[in-house]
Amino acid sequence: MKHTDIMRVVLVGAGNVGTHLAYHLCSSQVKLVQIWSRTEVSARTLGERVEVPFTTTLDDLSADADLYIVAVPDHALPEIMSLLSLQRDRFIVHTSAGSSMDILRIASDRYGVFYPLQTFSRTHPVRFSNVPLCLEANTAGDLALLKDFARHFSRRIYIMDTEKRKTVHLAAVFANNFPNYLYQVSEDILHGEKLPFDLVKPLIRETAMKVQRQSPRQVQTGPASREDHAIISQHIERLGRDTAYARLYSFLTQCILDSLANKNKPHDHA
Amino acid sequence: MKHTDIMRVVLVGAGNVGTHLAYHLCSSQVKLVQIWSRTEVSARTLGERVEVPFTTTLDDLSADADLYIVAVPDHALPEIMSLLSLQRDRFIVHTSAGSSMDILRIASDRYGVFYPLQTFSRTHPVRFSNVPLCLEANTAGDLALLKDFARHFSRRIYIMDTEKRKTVHLAAVFANNFPNYLYQVSEDILHGEKLPFDLVKPLIRETAMKVQRQSPRQVQTGPASREDHAIISQHIERLGRDTAYARLYSFLTQCILDSLANKNKPHDHA
Repeated sequence: MKHTDIMRVVLVGAGNVGTHLAYHLCSSQVKLVQIWSRTEVSARTLGERVEVPFTTTLDDLSADADLYIVAVPDHALPEIMSLLSLQRDRFIVHTSAGSSMDILRIASDRYGVFYPLQTFSRTHPVRFSNVPLCLEANTAGDLALLKDFARHFSRRIYIMDTEKRKTVHLAAVFANNFPNYLYQVSEDILHGEKLPFDLVKPLIRETAMKVQRQSPRQVQTGPASREDHAIISQHIERLGRDTAYARLYSFLTQCILDSLANKNKPHDHA
Repeated sequence: MKHTDIMRVVLVGAGNVGTHLAYHLCSSQVKLVQIWSRTEVSARTLGERVEVPFTTTLDDLSADADLYIVAVPDHALPEIMSLLSLQRDRFIVHTSAGSSMDILRIASDRYGVFYPLQTFSRTHPVRFSNVPLCLEANTAGDLALLKDFARHFSRRIYIMDTEKRKTVHLAAVFANNFPNYLYQVSEDILHGEKLPFDLVKPLIRETAMKVQRQSPRQVQTGPASREDHAIISQHIERLGRDTAYARLYSFLTQCILDSLANKNKPHDHA
């Protein structure tokens, strides 16, 4: 394919990631030619929404697309790869952080990874322009092609191998899933006293904005970082000693205290 | 004082909170007439920055201000209260989440609390317009006066007693200090593999923005919420079994798993 041609893409998977990729591709210079999902309702919902043909049969996949994006859960990847019956010169990528690139080798000689580092909920729109894209491919030529494709999404392109990508995914759990769980705890505590979660929303936003410019270590505040044991004890009492949230509070407070004692290297409080 | 008069304020304390209050007051309709700090350098730095007289002697405090804001750490409050020698009809508030309102009773018959629910780092500017202000006063008249004052900062005004305020502070630790610590862990993990913290910054921002509109419970993603034990095990291996970060990962993952098993009520995994 020449770089001036319009790239033709098939999307395999209509979950959270697939859905947001499809939405974005429909407003891009790339042509999404087909969507596959295991379930009829997912395939139809997304296909009709973005006005792209859809199928639930892998054997019906368009044979001549330039790129096949497989956006399915990690656990489903091996099976879907084994069922794909494309020509071995078709370029296939998956979107997963947790799976190695080599898992695609069974289906094609040309394979790679297109991992958008963002949290995707179906109900929440995603703007890709600032999303880091972690790319990998098994040949330099296809890596270049994948970069061209990625530029339709974002300028923040990172080339990295499977091991680095897995580290990034691990770091993302600490940056996203765990903080979000703590937001949930905060909401529970407030609702338990009939107070609105709205109270802490500006704080959540500000905390996230601060670390865009400064290291989290430099902007840490609160009772643990002040080593204010009187307030720490009050808080644990308030949660109720021996409750799950009190244990969580104690655990995280001890982590912060240890990190103060042991600055600039990963700490251990065995 | 009539409501049309310009309110005259003395600020006792020039730490993180005091500094940001002073910056804001200087661009408001309220007149900041004096700043006190225990240390000469803090008093001078802030006083000169905002062009307001400063002192390090509590006995030199202006006697006729309409409002005295005591913005000092919780542990310093009792001593400073015992040293204040104002007329007992002067209105005094503190800015602390963790201290009761009654701690001010020793210094005046008119007292209250002005607690801005935000994280204050001296190096990071604060826009107050969206900051929730938690107010309390010992008379209805002074509560009205404090509300008038608070409107110079923000429209988000909440009247709450000391017990509720302490609950809010506890919730704020889960919303701010603990997530910020997890950002720090994320940064450590990335830097350990020579990867930039920049990679997860959009994710941090997006996670915080999502919960502005949706409950954190509804937008949780990641291996724990998918109960993806293969990825969870991979992550723990990657952190190194028996390291502090692996224990932290396991602890938080178990919390999320428990919360899935036990939706909509605080969980316990004793």
